[in-house]
Amino acid sequence: MTTQDLYPTRLGQEVKMLERHDPVVWGSGEGSALTAAQVESYECDGYLQLPALFSESEVEAFQEEIAKLTSDRELLASERVIIEPDEDSLALRSVFDVHREGMFRDLVRDERVSNVARQLLGSDVYIHQSRINLKPPFRGKEFFWHSDFETWHAEDGMPSMRALSASVSLTENVHSNGPLMVIPGSHKHFVACGGETPAEHHRESLRRQEIGVPSDEMLTRLADESEVRNLVGPIGSVTFFDCNLMHGSNGNITPQARRNVFFVYNSVHNTLVEPFAAPARRPNHIAARNFEAVPLPVG
Amino acid sequence: MTTQDLYPTRLGQEVKMLERHDPVVWGSGEGSALTAAQVESYECDGYLQLPALFSESEVEAFQEEIAKLTSDRELLASERVIIEPDEDSLALRSVFDVHREGMFRDLVRDERVSNVARQLLGSDVYIHQSRINLKPPFRGKEFFWHSDFETWHAEDGMPSMRALSASVSLTENVHSNGPLMVIPGSHKHFVACGGETPAEHHRESLRRQEIGVPSDEMLTRLADESEVRNLVGPIGSVTFFDCNLMHGSNGNITPQARRNVFFVYNSVHNTLVEPFAAPARRPNHIAARNFEAVPLPVG
Repeated sequence: MTTQDLYPTRLGQEVKMLERHDPVVWGSGEGSALTAAQVESYECDGYLQLPALFSESEVEAFQEEIAKLTSDRELLASERVIIEPDEDSLALRSVFDVHREGMFRDLVRDERVSNVARQLLGSDVYIHQSRINLKPPFRGKEFFWHSDFETWHAEDGMPSMRALSASVSLTENVHSNGPLMVIPGSHKHFVACGGETPAEHHRESLRRQEIGVPSDEMLTRLADESEVRNLVGPIGSVTFFDCNLMHGSNGNITPQARRNVFFVYNSVHNTLVEPFAAPARRPNHIAARNFEAVPLPVG
Repeated sequence: MTTQDLYPTRLGQEVKMLERHDPVVWGSGEGSALTAAQVESYECDGYLQLPALFSESEVEAFQEEIAKLTSDRELLASERVIIEPDEDSLALRSVFDVHREGMFRDLVRDERVSNVARQLLGSDVYIHQSRINLKPPFRGKEFFWHSDFETWHAEDGMPSMRALSASVSLTENVHSNGPLMVIPGSHKHFVACGGETPAEHHRESLRRQEIGVPSDEMLTRLADESEVRNLVGPIGSVTFFDCNLMHGSNGNITPQARRNVFFVYNSVHNTLVEPFAAPARRPNHIAARNFEAVPLPVG
């Protein structure tokens, strides 16, 4: 049996806008984590911010954990670490696969986050990807517009739009330090991208993406129908956003770093098949093939 | 007679913070253009925004003038045009020396702008530099932090801090499209920069500046004492800012261009001498040596 490709992309076709076939909120949408109004807001905009969900002291502990990770020479030498795209830069851009032990293992299980994912995706969930984004001060580069799902579908074989990201702000997100920007409502369209995925594409794309990028025309259409919104908020805020929401962020020349840790929850009913438009699977530290459900918190 | 160098920079010394020797508001500060409260705010913050000083129809006419300029093949082939720094880009970043004829000649004389300059600088004024900045959508790159005066002093021989810029917004400036960012109060310090100015530095610096750039440490100090502020506002707004205000802007990945036209008014008592720290003068289209005062409007 082959899985039908509802979202053809990078198959040499023209860039075009397709409709979304999947619901945004799966199941009844009922649960203990979010109110009906919050669920509705997520359904409509494609994201939901919960300000200061974690306390400052919890965030301090996360920062200490990151300091430990980023001084671990073995980790720094590994493929889990992505460096900023400027050729002469040694600044860390991202560290992947941080949820398998220690404090971030506890964090993905924390019901303040995981129960939101379960409620919106209407099932048990597992972690598809985790990373720390360390947009450095002064010279942090932009993340160009993209739908995560477009990549996860093409390169990882994620069949349906039944996943979301939870991004925990470890620094204040202000308008000037390159905060997450979204186009609310854009998650209801699917922008099929041109080109074809080259082999080992992730080695380049995680620094600076050029394939799987929507066209200027499509972005203009999406923004004209809606707006571009900066998501700002205090330390410890969590932004949940749909896997197909068009998002990106500008660079950061300010002295203030913009750090977050984020987790992709995927439904256990939406586990990966073979990539829909790539010559090979991406490695496990970028696209996990351990589909074990995040356990419910004890007690 | 040699002019004493009150602001030594790029002389091989260490980066350091010096005090400002010049007033911010010259003369009595009285005049017909600004209220005493506005003058005080400019003195304190180093900038002043006048929202919607020009009407939408005036701005439309400016846009048409720019469309004319940017389709003038002779101009496009000239040194007055700066291209975005990405190697494969053909997008226009800036066009210099736009005030000598046509609509922008009238604009620099317009008393809504020129009288503000006269009032704050306490004298007649002339145009030191003019340019259109066309931060393009999607791929507009950042302008790193700098004090204009540091460059004008080192490379153009401007003796004292008795100049200001007037930036007219031709598009809405919003938080997401890379608006002007300032550190209020930073104009009261002078950050002397390291390095030495290479020959023909402007050919590179106007695309991406690397000499005459304050250190991360100095920027952090300035921002810690104050804050980083995004200057947003509607079409037709004018921002006046002191020649020594630390400013910059992030890149722009949004579909919305950020365009402005700006003029540097210098006091006729502060005309250029030889560069304080550069092997040669910059060309006239970047640093005018026609010191003729902007005439008062007729009638």
